[in-house]
Amino acid sequence: MPRYKLTLEYDGTPYQGWQRQESVPTIQGTVENAIVSFSREHVRLTAAGRTDAGVHARGQVVHVDLGRDWEPTKIAAALNHCLRFRGIAVIDACEIDAGFDARRSAIRRHYLYRVLCRRAPAALEQNRVWHHPLVLDAERMHEAGQALVGLHDFTSFRASECQAASPIKSIERLHVYRVDAEVHLRIEAPSFLHHQVRNIMGTLALVGSHKLEIGEVRRILEAHDRAAAGPTAPAAGLYLMAVDYPVPA
Amino acid sequence: MPRYKLTLEYDGTPYQGWQRQESVPTIQGTVENAIVSFSREHVRLTAAGRTDAGVHARGQVVHVDLGRDWEPTKIAAALNHCLRFRGIAVIDACEIDAGFDARRSAIRRHYLYRVLCRRAPAALEQNRVWHHPLVLDAERMHEAGQALVGLHDFTSFRASECQAASPIKSIERLHVYRVDAEVHLRIEAPSFLHHQVRNIMGTLALVGSHKLEIGEVRRILEAHDRAAAGPTAPAAGLYLMAVDYPVPA
Repeated sequence: MPRYKLTLEYDGTPYQGWQRQESVPTIQGTVENAIVSFSREHVRLTAAGRTDAGVHARGQVVHVDLGRDWEPTKIAAALNHCLRFRGIAVIDACEIDAGFDARRSAIRRHYLYRVLCRRAPAALEQNRVWHHPLVLDAERMHEAGQALVGLHDFTSFRASECQAASPIKSIERLHVYRVDAEVHLRIEAPSFLHHQVRNIMGTLALVGSHKLEIGEVRRILEAHDRAAAGPTAPAAGLYLMAVDYPVPA
Repeated sequence: MPRYKLTLEYDGTPYQGWQRQESVPTIQGTVENAIVSFSREHVRLTAAGRTDAGVHARGQVVHVDLGRDWEPTKIAAALNHCLRFRGIAVIDACEIDAGFDARRSAIRRHYLYRVLCRRAPAALEQNRVWHHPLVLDAERMHEAGQALVGLHDFTSFRASECQAASPIKSIERLHVYRVDAEVHLRIEAPSFLHHQVRNIMGTLALVGSHKLEIGEVRRILEAHDRAAAGPTAPAAGLYLMAVDYPVPA
């Protein structure tokens, strides 16, 4: 039973997140239905990141086992045909070792968060950015965010419904910078807690608008209390950009 | 009667272009209706560029005369309130001299054309780019495009329905370059013929995919024959980026 690794790009706007649910549109359900329509096989996909409703992906990675051998480029072409106009595209497909697991084998996730800072709301980037009417100070946000890099208890940045066994996570890199009228947060870690990136952005935005001192971020982290941190930033600004796996020996 | 200059960003996808028409949604009609709803005035907007159906703008400039004085920031806020969720935003507003005409006073228009070059269709950038399944050679396109810079008869790149008095136009700058998986064309001129940028892109794409030699672009230009050039590239990849006006003395 061959295993395939697929890389997906998607617009999360019309979907209730990655995970299959009864009677609401989800990315997983839509792609699984597309697989039925070309292969007649009812399968389950496993994804590196179970993105929330409205969150986008430029490089979500999934694996799937199919009953027969397919040319990977044929799988991609067939799925892209079924998924056209649905805001989901298979940008890469390959056959992979049966030991590969899109979720468990992943060693690093890369996220991008985009904030559009201007008075006018987003027109071309509607549902693609968080619209923030004040200009955020990216340098301040970057400096404050460095307190989060490393191995920490991230209870203060964890959603109450988070199902992870432990709040201890390790952020490997956190970079905030300006791109024209936008402020971008790039963040990398082996794995994340539920809402961790959006909660970090919600807090850093308070630093960027001078409502919070730079040094307060360390205090919030050390409080181990969700109520100490800022609000959860909206889903629309978040992108799962890439997932890293070990290079096979 | 004060005159106002407004700068607009819009997603052209759901509209039948700039120009007001009966019973179809247009940008002009939508903004004029929004002006009625906050000012009770029935006015006509004049735009720097009458963009086609599906063409986007990051910096369309329009002027409008209103019967009473308004704080420009209030006009922008009121219009943005009316236009929210419609893919149109007023990104700048100011009062301006009655001699200013958004169309006639313009001295330069800047356009961007985006092509997404990959096998998989666009998901996040659907309706924002021209999807081209082959990787286009941006350097070849740039070199070929230089034959179009300067004052020329652009009959070969002019739509049959173009209403301009003359096919003579002057391209001041044409630059083609790669941005990740996309190829971008930036082009600047005092003014353009109907479909001129899309017809130039359609021809340069043939050069980029090695279906046309670099030197052929000059021959096509000199043929003064629309049939000599390539097809019209799709509207979705085109953006009116900015309009320049003389600095007041």
